[in-house]
Amino acid sequence: MMLPHPTVDQISLPHVLAVLGDPTRLAILGDLARREGTALACSNFIDLASKSNLSYHFAKMREAGIIRVEPRGTARLISLRRADLDARFPGLLDSIIATAITLPPPEKRLATTA
Amino acid sequence: MMLPHPTVDQISLPHVLAVLGDPTRLAILGDLARREGTALACSNFIDLASKSNLSYHFAKMREAGIIRVEPRGTARLISLRRADLDARFPGLLDSIIATAITLPPPEKRLATTA
Repeated sequence: MMLPHPTVDQISLPHVLAVLGDPTRLAILGDLARREGTALACSNFIDLASKSNLSYHFAKMREAGIIRVEPRGTARLISLRRADLDARFPGLLDSIIATAITLPPPEKRLATTA
Repeated sequence: MMLPHPTVDQISLPHVLAVLGDPTRLAILGDLARREGTALACSNFIDLASKSNLSYHFAKMREAGIIRVEPRGTARLISLRRADLDARFPGLLDSIIATAITLPPPEKRLATTA
């Protein structure tokens, strides 16, 4: 079943900013940006948060129009809506990503890699 | 009495984004950007929200490092921390302002100007 995604025109700046105003979601954005052009399975993000927390963060980011979530068999593939966000808010994503990829990783990640 | 402001190094991206993820605060940012270089009295923003709501929004924006709030007699002057934000997150403020100044005004403003 396809999950609902906002159209480009429905993507709102306050909503995008509010959803990205969270360290775990910025870390997810950073990971997506590092491997841009590739849709990633949820399992690529398990060092960032628990599985149920990840599902919650992906839903928030999907509803805000930041990511696309597509079912692939029993898995879900996550990709950045780069073209849509660049069209709607020129320069915004690049400026956020530039900082997001330099942020200290969330605690969960530190614990996993320790 | 001077109000507390974060230093440049203390300004955090998730905090800035979370605080700007609100239509009234984006409208305040748009108004500050339109008259940049000028510190504005709170009374310049009374078409955006009630006085007590404005105080709340200014406090949130000050604590996040987005604006400077300086007492001047019985008034308070509001200014954008443009140089600090540009140094910390290059390009971010410009990309947000570009959209913030095009956003439909909050309801309160519509009601006042009707």
